[in-house]
Amino acid sequence: MKYDVTVIGSGPGGYIAAIRCAQLGLKTAIIEKYNTLGGTCLNVGCIPSKALLDSSEHYHNAAHTFKIHGIELKDLKVNLPQMIQRKREVVKQTCDGIVYLMKKNKIDVYYGLGSFVDKNTIQITPTKNQAEGGETKQIQTDKTIIATGSKPIILPSVPYDKKRIITSTEALELQEVPKHLIIIGGGVIGMEIGSVYGRMGAKVTVIEFLDSLIPTMDRTMGKELQKVLAKLGFDFYFKHKVTGASVKGNTVTVTAENDKGETVNFEGDYCLLSIGRRPYTEGLGLEKVGIKVDNKGRIEVNDHLETNVKGIYAIGDVVRGAMLAHKAEEEGVIVAEQIAGQKPHINYLLIPNVVYTWPEVAAVGYTEEELKANGRKYKTGTFPFKALGRARASMDLDGLVKVLADATTDEILGVHIIGPRAADMIGEAVVAMEYRASAEDISRISHAHPTFMEALKEACLAATGGRALNM
Amino acid sequence: MKYDVTVIGSGPGGYIAAIRCAQLGLKTAIIEKYNTLGGTCLNVGCIPSKALLDSSEHYHNAAHTFKIHGIELKDLKVNLPQMIQRKREVVKQTCDGIVYLMKKNKIDVYYGLGSFVDKNTIQITPTKNQAEGGETKQIQTDKTIIATGSKPIILPSVPYDKKRIITSTEALELQEVPKHLIIIGGGVIGMEIGSVYGRMGAKVTVIEFLDSLIPTMDRTMGKELQKVLAKLGFDFYFKHKVTGASVKGNTVTVTAENDKGETVNFEGDYCLLSIGRRPYTEGLGLEKVGIKVDNKGRIEVNDHLETNVKGIYAIGDVVRGAMLAHKAEEEGVIVAEQIAGQKPHINYLLIPNVVYTWPEVAAVGYTEEELKANGRKYKTGTFPFKALGRARASMDLDGLVKVLADATTDEILGVHIIGPRAADMIGEAVVAMEYRASAEDISRISHAHPTFMEALKEACLAATGGRALNM
Repeated sequence: MKYDVTVIGSGPGGYIAAIRCAQLGLKTAIIEKYNTLGGTCLNVGCIPSKALLDSSEHYHNAAHTFKIHGIELKDLKVNLPQMIQRKREVVKQTCDGIVYLMKKNKIDVYYGLGSFVDKNTIQITPTKNQAEGGETKQIQTDKTIIATGSKPIILPSVPYDKKRIITSTEALELQEVPKHLIIIGGGVIGMEIGSVYGRMGAKVTVIEFLDSLIPTMDRTMGKELQKVLAKLGFDFYFKHKVTGASVKGNTVTVTAENDKGETVNFEGDYCLLSIGRRPYTEGLGLEKVGIKVDNKGRIEVNDHLETNVKGIYAIGDVVRGAMLAHKAEEEGVIVAEQIAGQKPHINYLLIPNVVYTWPEVAAVGYTEEELKANGRKYKTGTFPFKALGRARASMDLDGLVKVLADATTDEILGVHIIGPRAADMIGEAVVAMEYRASAEDISRISHAHPTFMEALKEACLAATGGRALNM
Repeated sequence: MKYDVTVIGSGPGGYIAAIRCAQLGLKTAIIEKYNTLGGTCLNVGCIPSKALLDSSEHYHNAAHTFKIHGIELKDLKVNLPQMIQRKREVVKQTCDGIVYLMKKNKIDVYYGLGSFVDKNTIQITPTKNQAEGGETKQIQTDKTIIATGSKPIILPSVPYDKKRIITSTEALELQEVPKHLIIIGGGVIGMEIGSVYGRMGAKVTVIEFLDSLIPTMDRTMGKELQKVLAKLGFDFYFKHKVTGASVKGNTVTVTAENDKGETVNFEGDYCLLSIGRRPYTEGLGLEKVGIKVDNKGRIEVNDHLETNVKGIYAIGDVVRGAMLAHKAEEEGVIVAEQIAGQKPHINYLLIPNVVYTWPEVAAVGYTEEELKANGRKYKTGTFPFKALGRARASMDLDGLVKVLADATTDEILGVHIIGPRAADMIGEAVVAMEYRASAEDISRISHAHPTFMEALKEACLAATGGRALNM
């Protein structure tokens, strides 16, 4: 078979790229190494974690806030196998949805490991699970989009046994709530998984090398998130470098060195390794076509996401930039449109970032630390959710909105939200920044009452000369 | 005492107007007839209804979705007095917040019935509850802002006894869940209160004079909301005109006439009268200063919200336009700014409208029916939540986003959402429309994955030549 475009990897970047190619009239194939489409995000990432986050938040509310709400019950307990089962069904429906979309858009799907034979030939080798009946094939392609994503980073000193020392992949399939979950890494994935089990009664200990949680985000967000998770019973050990770990029966011991050089031991029944993800290119045969990879293992691309080999593009987690599903999707769309002769672009500054704890954290634009480092003069407006009627009604009193605006022009430079529904609230901030709105602009736009969104308006008022109305 | 500005009524319109006046350096007084500040919205409207909506939604989830989530419990029951008590505390905190804001902004608060003696003199007469120790006072004022709000409309044929035949005010204070709640009127307030009790097991019957629910909104919204509420067990009787009602013991009988002219009887234990609200001006002494009122009892104002008497303004529910707290707030701000010599304006088309059922309904801009009536050429893009990963994760599969855009320019003319978090999602649509965004603009702006907001992006893609990616 000969295709205009072949996409390797069917995560959000890959499958969206394939659909956009097909919409633009290109004959398209997609290759997936696993047995289900959707990649990390749908199978072992965003979607299953949100399913467990939603379920566990319900449990937490039932255990802690229902009495105040006037809801009485007895013998509350978690049926974790059922919770995991529902998550599997959500994943299955979502993956099936991708199969439907491929069919609807007349995209040929190949299951197996895709690897370059040459620039225009890709071999598909069935993997272990697919081997029965599957046979190795070769397809011809004019253009190729590499969208092979990423894998969790494993520390060499920590024996990742997938049973007691686990990554997010296994954490989404546990059949019991840990008694004490030790999390290595205070980033997004660790805090999400930690929230899931912390809400259901696990003691959670977080060991982080740096001095704050979610350290790539505005520092205010990490601080506020820490307060919230501390209420859930999390313990935090910052500036601790993990030096080793061992498993004995059901006990995991993690050893770390604190900033005074002292050795500290942590004992738990599970240890989650969540120190980041690395680009995944194994078996792709990049060397066959001479595609360059940087020192972090990322495929090098130019501003058009084309590799050093003409006609071969790469998108998503396998290239530079934030490892986010929607960043990969945007890249998938623009590569498809470029192949079709269009001239699209991406504004990377305005790709939002979300943490699905409760309250949620979401941000777009510059952090305060970045503005300081750049020497940009800025003003700040903040508004706490506890001052909002809507938040009182639902008892979501934690968190705040922080708006950063140019000191002279009032243009919004960054919006950082930790609060109820922040994941969806950030949408308004992204659109505002795409139109280069000033803080005063947003403060003069009607916001429905009573909504959580009013906090953004009030933070913009606060940034505009301390004009907040409800504070 | 002599004031630059006196505000009569301390609802969202009034208290925000007073704060903005004070921020602008005007010596300001506010007069409130009831014993607590905040008006209908805070005391017997938006805030308490949202508190009960949140609590009852938790109960509904516990009863219907927890098992699927893997959460087990026994003996689930509603403690309605506690639920109402929590609501009261939410209201009290919010009203206390207004007292704090008045103090902080150095606004003098007078409790009592404010009425005009002349254009610059207002008398404050303590009401029944305030009479002990209270005395009648007069204050002098340069400008006055009337923000006296509205009251539920009572049908003359229906004996409103506040016990069995009630309005929203009493519905927020019930001490038992109705067995069968008959709702007269299929508008926003009826559907919200109906949801509260329907979720807790009440049989709900809705009698509506017109042929759809929430009939002022885009028809698609009413249709979808009806489907959702039907699942909750609501029965609907459209094109039914209520002709009378009676109470005997604990039984209410409501009589209506259907569109064939037949008489239909409904029997329940409570009847909620929610056919709208009327402007409230009793006791204001409008006649003393010659302020004109229109045939619907609304105070007539010009485009600057000034009445026919120079220096006297009116805002919110007591004037023309949507009876919405945030519309009143916007009017309060612009009147204050005008008094201070500024030249603000309001775009009434872009004041969003929200229904706090679950899923929520929210809209901004033109409805499809309005565009048709205006002869405007438009295109439509819709996207159902059930096609969204985020919605599957939380099992919020009902609802859709509908985007209406100009057929030629692609400018977004209206956004109508029924779905999870719609109340907050509409914020992005309002900002987009303030910047006169095209549907393609929004479709090219990054939306975080997985969020509910992705449905707006997909609906915009759908409006832009059927380019939806996930449908």
